[in-house]
Formats: sequence, C-alpha cells, structure tokens
Amino acid sequence: MSSNLSFVLNKPNDVSFEERPIPKLKSPHDVLVAVNYTGICGSDVHYWLHGAIGHFVVKDPMVLGHESAGTVVEIGSEVTDLKKGDRVALEPGYPCRRCSDCLSGRYNLCHEMVFAATPPYDGTLTGFWAAPHDFCYKLPENVSLQEGALIEPLAVAVHIVKQARIQPGNSVVVMGAGPVGLLCAAVAGSFGATKIVQVDIVQSKLDFAKSFAATHTYLSQRVSPEENAKNLIAAAELGKGADVVIDASGAEPSIQTSLHVVRMGGTYVQGGMGKSDINFPIMALCLKEVTARGSFRYGSGDYKLAIELVAAGKVDVKKLVNGVVAFKDAESAFKKVKEGEVIKILIAGPNEKVESELDTSVDAAKLEAAKASGNTGCC
Amino acid sequence: MSSNLSFVLNKPNDVSFEERPIPKLKSPHDVLVAVNYTGICGSDVHYWLHGAIGHFVVKDPMVLGHESAGTVVEIGSEVTDLKKGDRVALEPGYPCRRCSDCLSGRYNLCHEMVFAATPPYDGTLTGFWAAPHDFCYKLPENVSLQEGALIEPLAVAVHIVKQARIQPGNSVVVMGAGPVGLLCAAVAGSFGATKIVQVDIVQSKLDFAKSFAATHTYLSQRVSPEENAKNLIAAAELGKGADVVIDASGAEPSIQTSLHVVRMGGTYVQGGMGKSDINFPIMALCLKEVTARGSFRYGSGDYKLAIELVAAGKVDVKKLVNGVVAFKDAESAFKKVKEGEVIKILIAGPNEKVESELDTSVDAAKLEAAKASGNTGCC
Amino acid sequence: MSSNLSFVLNKPNDVSFEERPIPKLKSPHDVLVAVNYTGICGSDVHYWLHGAIGHFVVKDPMVLGHESAGTVVEIGSEVTDLKKGDRVALEPGYPCRRCSDCLSGRYNLCHEMVFAATPPYDGTLTGFWAAPHDFCYKLPENVSLQEGALIEPLAVAVHIVKQARIQPGNSVVVMGAGPVGLLCAAVAGSFGATKIVQVDIVQSKLDFAKSFAATHTYLSQRVSPEENAKNLIAAAELGKGADVVIDASGAEPSIQTSLHVVRMGGTYVQGGMGKSDINFPIMALCLKEVTARGSFRYGSGDYKLAIELVAAGKVDVKKLVNGVVAFKDAESAFKKVKEGEVIKILIAGPNEKVESELDTSVDAAKLEAAKASGNTGCC
Amino acid sequence: MSSNLSFVLNKPNDVSFEERPIPKLKSPHDVLVAVNYTGICGSDVHYWLHGAIGHFVVKDPMVLGHESAGTVVEIGSEVTDLKKGDRVALEPGYPCRRCSDCLSGRYNLCHEMVFAATPPYDGTLTGFWAAPHDFCYKLPENVSLQEGALIEPLAVAVHIVKQARIQPGNSVVVMGAGPVGLLCAAVAGSFGATKIVQVDIVQSKLDFAKSFAATHTYLSQRVSPEENAKNLIAAAELGKGADVVIDASGAEPSIQTSLHVVRMGGTYVQGGMGKSDINFPIMALCLKEVTARGSFRYGSGDYKLAIELVAAGKVDVKKLVNGVVAFKDAESAFKKVKEGEVIKILIAGPNEKVESELDTSVDAAKLEAAKASGNTGCC
Repeated sequence: MSSNLSFVLNKPNDVSFEERPIPKLKSPHDVLVAVNYTGICGSDVHYWLHGAIGHFVVKDPMVLGHESAGTVVEIGSEVTDLKKGDRVALEPGYPCRRCSDCLSGRYNLCHEMVFAATPPYDGTLTGFWAAPHDFCYKLPENVSLQEGALIEPLAVAVHIVKQARIQPGNSVVVMGAGPVGLLCAAVAGSFGATKIVQVDIVQSKLDFAKSFAATHTYLSQRVSPEENAKNLIAAAELGKGADVVIDASGAEPSIQTSLHVVRMGGTYVQGGMGKSDINFPIMALCLKEVTARGSFRYGSGDYKLAIELVAAGKVDVKKLVNGVVAFKDAESAFKKVKEGEVIKILIAGPNEKVESELDTSVDAAKLEAAKASGNTGCC
Repeated sequence: MSSNLSFVLNKPNDVSFEERPIPKLKSPHDVLVAVNYTGICGSDVHYWLHGAIGHFVVKDPMVLGHESAGTVVEIGSEVTDLKKGDRVALEPGYPCRRCSDCLSGRYNLCHEMVFAATPPYDGTLTGFWAAPHDFCYKLPENVSLQEGALIEPLAVAVHIVKQARIQPGNSVVVMGAGPVGLLCAAVAGSFGATKIVQVDIVQSKLDFAKSFAATHTYLSQRVSPEENAKNLIAAAELGKGADVVIDASGAEPSIQTSLHVVRMGGTYVQGGMGKSDINFPIMALCLKEVTARGSFRYGSGDYKLAIELVAAGKVDVKKLVNGVVAFKDAESAFKKVKEGEVIKILIAGPNEKVESELDTSVDAAKLEAAKASGNTGCC
Repeated sequence: MSSNLSFVLNKPNDVSFEERPIPKLKSPHDVLVAVNYTGICGSDVHYWLHGAIGHFVVKDPMVLGHESAGTVVEIGSEVTDLKKGDRVALEPGYPCRRCSDCLSGRYNLCHEMVFAATPPYDGTLTGFWAAPHDFCYKLPENVSLQEGALIEPLAVAVHIVKQARIQPGNSVVVMGAGPVGLLCAAVAGSFGATKIVQVDIVQSKLDFAKSFAATHTYLSQRVSPEENAKNLIAAAELGKGADVVIDASGAEPSIQTSLHVVRMGGTYVQGGMGKSDINFPIMALCLKEVTARGSFRYGSGDYKLAIELVAAGKVDVKKLVNGVVAFKDAESAFKKVKEGEVIKILIAGPNEKVESELDTSVDAAKLEAAKASGNTGCC
Repeated sequence: MSSNLSFVLNKPNDVSFEERPIPKLKSPHDVLVAVNYTGICGSDVHYWLHGAIGHFVVKDPMVLGHESAGTVVEIGSEVTDLKKGDRVALEPGYPCRRCSDCLSGRYNLCHEMVFAATPPYDGTLTGFWAAPHDFCYKLPENVSLQEGALIEPLAVAVHIVKQARIQPGNSVVVMGAGPVGLLCAAVAGSFGATKIVQVDIVQSKLDFAKSFAATHTYLSQRVSPEENAKNLIAAAELGKGADVVIDASGAEPSIQTSLHVVRMGGTYVQGGMGKSDINFPIMALCLKEVTARGSFRYGSGDYKLAIELVAAGKVDVKKLVNGVVAFKDAESAFKKVKEGEVIKILIAGPNEKVESELDTSVDAAKLEAAKASGNTGCC
C-alpha cells in the first residue's frame, strides 16, 4: 500500500501533516478503506480555530475530518456484503451496540460512541480508514465518490427531516441557508413537502436556495420575532402557520421566530448548533401544543436513505461543491470555508490525484452566495 | 325550575351575584344541566385579580367557573345517550367541529373554540348550563358529583400525560406539586410509570405528594439548573436521566432544570403556564434529541379516561378537596384559593344545599401543604 | 336555476332519469353545488348490477354516483371560505361529528355516516347537490373540473397509502392495476417510495402501469402464493421482501401472495374489496411481525392532499380518463365500465355541454389495458 | 466448578442426560451463568414430541430449554454491569447486532438470530450457560430465581401487549387462557386496560383466569364466529366491540372470532402459534380498518419491563407455578406439561438442590385448570 499521510490538529490554529501507520482491522467484521474525498464540516473548522466544542476538548494531536468516501482495499474474514474495490460512503461514528439506546435503534444517542474527529478520536483526513463493514455504505454505480463525500451532511439533513416527521403536503420553513439548511430543504421536498420556505439574512444565499430546493424564500428582518414571523407567514402565504419549522442556523433570533411561525399543533426541530442557552418563547410552545425535537448527527437508516436520494436524482449534492483540492492544500481549504468563500469544498485523499485546485466551472451565484457570509456553523 | 343565580366578574376584584335567564337549548343535540358543584381553577383566580390572561381580556361582565358537574334536567330531541336525572361532568369548551383541527381529532386546537369563563364567554358558576350532549359525560354510579367537579383538572393532567407518551416502566419527574402536578403524578402511575418523582420548593407539599401518588420527592434547590438536575438525578437514582419530565409549575428554574433532568432521547412536556419568554437550555434539547411538547387543555378521549380512572379507583381525586362552600360564599372560596389555604375547594350550585362551609375532616397535612405556598397558577 | 335531472337506480339493471326537486340548504354551513362531472366507481356498477353490496341493500329508488366535482351556486349564511362560482371537489360522505370516532379524527369510521349512493342515501349523478362547506374542496386554478371528479378515487388511494405509513426510500408492491391500484402506485411515489412494483394478471394493464407510476411490474403467475412471492421478490430484486405491500385487487391469490412478499416487520394494507372470508397465511403475519391494516374510504386531510398532489403535478389523473359522455348517456357509460372498455369515464352533469361522446385522443395502450380485463371491483 | 449435565433431545421422544464441557467465554463482553431454574415452553414439548417446528428441524442432538434464570459465576474483562454472584434472568436469543433490523431496534427480527433450543443451537437445560452480558438481566432483591425463570414467558406477553399498543382505558379481549394468555391479561392490566376479557373453551381455566388478572371471562361457544363474537360483546358489554383483541390460542375459530369482536379502528394481535393457513374474515379487517400485528418472541426493553412488572408486584408470576422438580426428573416434567397436569413447572439446574418434587401447596383450582386441557401450544 501507499501513504497514510494524515492532517493533524496539534492545537488551535496549528496543523501539520504526519505519516501515520496504516490501521489494522480489529475485528473480522471490519474493512479497510482508502479515503478518496473528504468534505469539511463547520465542526472541523471550529476545532481548528478553538480546539474545543463544548465539553469536547482537543488535548492530544487529533486527525481532522469525518465527511468521507473511499474505496475498500481489505475486508475482514466475516465480511460478505463488501469486496475489494467497492466504493463506499463512510458513516464516521461507531456505537457500542450493547446499551439500551443501541438495542432500541437509537444508536446515535449511545454514550460510548466513537466518533471521527471528536476528541479523543482521530478523523478521516488520512490515507486509510478501518471501520465496521455495516458503517461503510456501498455507492450505486451512478453515485460518484465526490458525491459520496457529501452523504454525511446529507444524512444530517435526513435525520433532521425525520425528526420533523414531515408528511406529504406539509408546509416547511427552514431557518438558515448554509449547507445543512439547503440539504434540509431538498430532503423535505423528497418527503413530499409542497411548500418549502428558506430563510436567511443574506439575499444571495436565498437566491441560491431558490435554485436548489426552496419553493419560497424570505429575507429575515431585524424586527421582533413575533413581527418577523407575522411577515414571514404573510409573505409565504402560510395561513395559520407552517406545519413544520426547522432551525438549521442555531441563531437565537431564528429560533425565536421559529416558535412564532409554526402553526398550532405543528412541529419545530432544532438542527443547528449555537449558544447553550437562549431567550425562548416557552408559552408559544405550551399554548400552541408545538412538538419540538432536537436532532443529533444521524442514525438507523439515514445513510441508506441519503444515498438513495442521490441515486434517484432527488437531491443534487454536486450543486453544493465549489471545488476539490489536493491533500497538501487541506489547510487552505479550511481557510476558504472559514472565510465563507465556498459552500462545500472537498479535499482529495493523500493517494488521490486532482487536476485542478478549484473547479472553475462553478456557478457564479453559488460562489457569490458562499462569499456573502461566513459559513462557520455546523449547519 | 329554580334560580339561575350567577357569579359574575365585573372588573378586576369586583364580583357580584346576578339572576340571569335560564339558557335555552340551541340545538336538538343539546342538553340543559343543573350545576351541582364547581371547582376553582388558577385561571379563574387570575381573571378575578387581573381581568385578563395574555390576549384574553375581560371587557364585559363575565360569569366565572369552568370545573363543574351537574344533573341533566332537559334533553334535546335528538339526544339518545343521556336522560333527565343523569349526573354528568361538564367539558366546558365547544369546538367548531368543521375546521381541519376538529376533523383531524385535535379539537382543543380549534381557533373557534367557545370556552367557559374565557372572555367573551360566560362560565359555569351559575344555576343552569346548556351544552352539546357529547361534551356532558355521564358519571358512573360509583363516582360522586363532587368527584365529577374534579374531572376537569384531572382531564388536564390526562392530556399532559398523553402528550408525554408515558409508557409502562418509565421514570417520570413532575415539576410542581399543585393540583395539576399532583394529578399528573397519579395519572402517570396509572399509565404504568414505575418511578414518579415529584419536585417542589415546599416540603409540606412534597409530604402530601408522597401520600398521594409520588414514589419519590425532591426539594428543589436554589442552585444552577445543571447542579439541581444532577442532585435530583442522584437523589432519585435516575441513572442517565428521567424518561419523561413534566413541568406543571410554569416556573423558569423548573423548566431549565427539566431539560437537564431528562435523559438523551427522553420527553419533556410543558403543562404549566408562566412567563411568555424564559432563558432556555436549547442545546440540551438539541444535543440530547429531547422531544418537547406543549399541552393545552384537553381533547379527544381525555374526559372519558379521567372518569374511568376515578371509577376504577386509580386516582383518588377526593383527597385533593379541602371542603365545599355554599354558592353565596363563592368569593370567600376564591380568597381561600388565592391565599393558598386549600388545594381544592368546591362551590355548590345556587340550588344546592351544603351542610358545612368547610369539611373539617380534612387531613391536616393537606391543609398544611396548601397553606405553605400560594396556589395561584393554573397548575 | 335549471334542471335537476337525476340518474336513478330502481332495482338491479333498471335505471331511469327523473327530474327531482333542487335540494335546499339544511344548515347555514351548507352550500349548493351544480354538479359538472362525475366518475363511475366499481361500487356504482355493483349496485346497478346486483342492487346490493354486503349489508347495504337498495330498497327504494336511489340516485347513483359519488365521484363528482361541481360549481358553487349558493352558500349558507355562515359560510366564509367558499363563494358562488368556486369550483369544488365533493367529498361525498358526511359523518355525525359527535361520536368518539368523529371527535378523535377518524370520521370515516363514523357509524352514522351519510354516504352518497350508499343506500338509503342518494348520490351525485344529479343536477344540484347540497353539502356542508367543509366537505367541498376548492380546486386551485390549475386543476380542472374533470380532474376534480377524480379526486375521490385519488383520495381512496391517499388513504390506503397513509394506512401503509409509506416512508421515503420504501419498496412498495401494489397488487392490482385497476384505477385505485394505479393511483396507489402514484401516491406511493409522491410519498417517497423508490421502488414501486405493480402486479396484475394482464400484461397490457402492466404496460400502462409502467407508463403511469410503477418502476417495476410483475405478471402474477398461477403458482402457489409462496412460489409467486419468491419469483416476484427475485424479479423485482426486493431482497428480504417488500417494505410495504398494498392489495388493491381484493383477489384471494393476491392477498395470499402479499403476505409472503412483505418483509419481516413490514406492512400490508388491504385496500381492495372482495370475498368476505379467504384462506389466509396467518402464521406468516405472526412470525414475520407484519403489520396489516384495512383501509376504508378516506378521512381527515385526504381530499386536501389529493388535490395538492394533482396541483403540484405529482399525480396526473387525466391520464386515466378515456372520455366524457353526456348525462343522457350515463347508462352506456356504466356499460363501458362493466365491459372493461375504459379505465375511467366521466359523465357530464345534466346542465353541462359535452362536445364529443368519447375523447378520441386517448392513448391506445390505455384503451387496450382497460379492455383486456373487466374493471368491476372498487379497486 | 461442578457438573454441566445437560438434557439432550436426540430424536423425537428420545432424550438423555449428557455431561458436556463447561462453555468458555467467547468475548470479553460475555458472562458465564450457573443455571438455577428453567421453565418448559410449549415449543420445547413440541420439539421433544415431533423433532421439528415448521422449517426448524432437529438434525443433531440438541439441549432443550430456554426459560431460565441463573447466577453469574464468571465475567468477561469488559463487563462492568454484572459481577459474580448476581442473579440474572437469561434472554436466550442473540442477534447479529449489525443488520438493518438490529440497528433499527427490532433485533427479534434478525435473520442471524442464535436462539437457545432452536436447532441447530443448544438450550439452557444445562449446568452452565455463556451469554453476552447485555442479555443477562440482574434480578432485583425482591425477585426470586424461580420468578426469574418466568421472565421469559412474561417477556413474550409484554411484547404481544406492546404490539397491541394498549392504552389506558382500553377494553381488551384475550383469546386463550394458557400461560401466555394469562400473562397477556396481567400485562394488559399493567398497561392500564380497564376491561380485560379472557376467553377459553374450558371453564376451569377461566375460573383461574378470573383469580389471576381478567375482569371478565367468556366461555367460547361452538357457533359461527360472528355469533360467538356477538354473544361475547353482549356478555362483556363491549358496546361497538373491543379496542384490542389478542389471540394467544393459535386456534382458527378464536382468530376468526377475534376479527368480529374488535371494534372499527381497533387492533388485533396474533400472539399464539397454530396452523399456517386458516379461513380468515379479511373483509372485516378491511372495512373496519382493523390494525393487525404479529408478535414474535421479544425485543428491545421487553425483559427489562417484565422484571419491573414482577418487582413492582404488578404481575404475580409465582401463581402460575405448580411445582419444581430436580434436574434428573426433567423428562417427567415434560410429561406433566404434555398431559396438561400443570400450568408451569420448573426444572432445577443440575447443581441445584430441590426439597420436594412438586409443590403441594399449589392452589387446587390452578391444578384443575391445568389438567382440564392439554397445554401444548407455545401460548
């Protein structure tokens, strides 16, 4: 085999490249995957800049990255559903499989989860990655490896939309038009939502959203949440309010507005990460009998559905990608994400050849949208 | 027939007794009920003191009261399931039956709801009450009219517990030990909850709770919500947290603590009314994938189940009643509730004879509990 | 106003046209509708031929028809959401609104349902029809009155698919390629099913199904149900079986096969009507933990969603219509349906002008499909 | 350690005792358990008599038994929640933990399940048993090892009742008064069912049922299923039918009656095993929109809840036990079950001392009930 060069975060704002040993299979159910492409998540950028997210603190050097697709190069003796050469999307978190959460089908809540690029566990910006076979999802013929690297954020959106229990015919408002907000709108459409209103504070992002999956857009206003909600409802002709509101921004005013936009008996899902505690219209939740749910990563069936949505042409993830850079340019890619110069950028694996640093065929509106505002949150 | 004397709120702190015309049946599906007993809700007291709750403002004189049981004295021509002399619990809100909320079985969310003692609609502290037959629930032989007057708050608790989707074996924490909090604990038990932790800031209320339905109690501490939650979890041996937390207090610190007490993937229901906006641990909801639901009044099946719980001896509502007063003493009864001298007090109908003003056989602990803190919220 | 000519079934095989009085509004919430178009349901044909369906026996002359769209010509004093001239789809069954089924949102189960063209109630093959406003659904600009007459069978399909709880990514097998089977396939697609296998015993009907909504078809074989299921699973690459199987045929071999096609933990819905009692693989249901559900007519939200699916272009109901005949030709239209010469044929209202008896632009394959087998069941 | 004597089925009606090697832990997550008591399931008897159940055929000698409780004697290096000396109930089936059924929380549907005493896997009528720690459930102080051996059939009943989605206030009919039928009635009560009707063809079994958990009993009649259902509904005052019907008999007439007893919109669960194919009232299911579900073994959370029900005194499993026999008398115990001389009999482990062969303190009515009819089905 070849290089297992890895992109390591030593401490905030201090990264380096290290040649690490190629991992060995720990179980006969594991496979070894050569990483082809990896996307950058807001959490990667956050660790890079701050060295911590909440309770998770990077104490020892940690390999970054967890949005990856690769090619199977070795399989364990018990693996029957994958073979060498299969192209796979990597689900980067491995639960214990034995606790009550795992046994009841909610493994994303497992307290012993081992998750890539969440300290103390290394991530996937590396040459080779060993993983349980059932967390490596074979890509259909018509899904490329670059699309495969976007299955991870799409699975995040799938999980959010499932938490929202979207039904055909629902009206859905999505707060935020970052990568996950855009993908939530697309997934909502594939679940049968007939009105999809994307909301943001940057007009160019809304323009892109309209070309991607939203049926309506609304430029959020700097007024009270009640007023903002009233105007949004009027603008998008939502009648008594939206059936479902998804917050993919994590921003306090967006969350407050969400509770005033949702109809009586409707559902609001918190998908975006932000401040721990905010001022919250609790009586709107109580008196309107709103169902509110959090959404955390992804779980049973989410990767499978994400891949099917791409394969069936229902979500065109390629549209979100501004370009691909070589592994050696990983840090510059992080900078581009930090500066909001891209929606999504992919980093090729260390053994992967890339023709051009940045795809110049990218839609001008898309770059415009990305540049308009920094994209630093997970959503 | 006899007197239709009514207890009328003219403006804040200004009540009077008025002889009003006995209502006529508006539909062949209606029945006329002589009111026997009426309990006092926190909302009645709030209107009496402040003349308004949120958007609902008492502009014209309004009859108070909505927790009543009575006796059928006249039936419409199409009524077949009730007859004169039947004793009934009154569900005091009548939906339009035609909107999408009504047709989908969530009539408590109906925008055209006509609800007793919610302006501009008169309440049930009156002699006779006309109502659709299907909102008058026949009491079984073994349920008294006084118990019948407590079906309303019990239905509130049933609805809250249903919103919490309590399953047998669940651990449940109930914040607040007022009438609705106490009833929530009892209903949770009838749903199969095996650990029921009642929380309050007054020890004597917890003592009563322990004698009523709680398996554990916890005296809430004046520390941070995280600390309070940690101590509660340790004290009640809740492991990774409670399966379900119900806030029946409406108090900001209780709600904050609720989100830290509930386990990953658990459910929190907001049942108590309080401030419109509070500081709220939104990331706890998001990252723990908590399901939060509001609960508003009661809906399909709630009265029926409430009556069955009393008939089956699963909830002993009598234990909450400190006494019964004559109709002429309605204002003094309101004062007792305001002062926290009682948990529940019943006002006899204007045509009802009562032996003693206040039941002296009442448990000392119960009076103690009631006195210890003002009971002014709905819960 | 003009003619209220009605198409009346006197006894089996004996129909006549009668001028009946134009109905009057019974409630201020009612509207009067001039009927423009009416489709023919298998149940209409069954009453025409046999005078009865199960317990329902036509004793007195009864107007036929219940799949209609029309134009509002008069509104009751309390109606605010409709006005004269509005084009509406008619939901032809009116529940009591007061029983526990109605109040819990399952009004299609109401024991006092008044349903058009179900004895003793008259149907909609008439000039004018009075109905509660909330059972008359305004058609959007881009939905024609002829499409409006197909909302009824589409609502049947919507209800079946809802009973099946179809989730995005599901594999769905639909037994039967009659009108309702075809519509079930289309609705399943709009709910996100990614594999939709239509099954029938007539190849030409499968050919049409493939051009309508199915992704796969399977010509049912005259072998044992287990063998048929095994072959179906292999042909459609269903792996461990289908997530959902819908029987829209009512035929005993189809139902038997359904239970062997569905995967462990999957769902099977009985939508088609047929023999009361059949030989049934009960242990397949037990040991595979199948969820089976019946589906009866339509309920809360079904008409609304059916109209949205047509308006959004997700279900092209026009494709099912072979032609339109004048009211005076109603009996010949019934004959065409009986003979299986059409998939769907519409009868214009008595005050409606039609240019040609039968639309000659109809797809040859569609006629072929219809002719190939009699279409006499409801599905 | 001591004896690992095992009770082995060689071929139909041919059993023997064999000293087998004590098993070794295969994983650091496993524990070794000394078996104290084992109950006899109908399936054990069926294998003993016939050597096969459906597709499962005993080809090589197989140890019988799967209803056991024992004492931990060794723990793997990674086990932290159990220690030597802990008394545990054994859940005797181990899923793969990697397939989509396992990952989605329905591990009882796993196609790779390794289940005790289901060929080719050995059972628990042996001295020592190695198992994953998370399938060994620690018994609380107040639950005995003999009660522990009844957790398995109780978990079967818990799973059936969960499949029935029983809600507080429901009316429930249980067909069959064998061990599982009796336990279903008790569990239904703990879920809040207020009317529980046990049905059987043997009066003495109904008498015992009435003393155990049923609120009503009905002696099934040899009339048509419709007639039987009508009489049952009248006798138990079920109005429009039962909310839930559970078949724990597997008998064709019981299943047929079930579909006529359940109300419109109600739920029927098939819990008992019987003939593969039966005559079934499919249109009753369709037109009444019945939800039917199969129930197979037990899954996530069932053992935990079963133990809690016993610990909380909600289900008194001891009442079902007629006696305990020494390991050497295993075959005679099987004979007693076959002859219907007992409801439940326990076999002590080979290293366990038992005082008396058969508990003579057993209730006469219980023996009477057991004797009255052979107990040969799983339920």
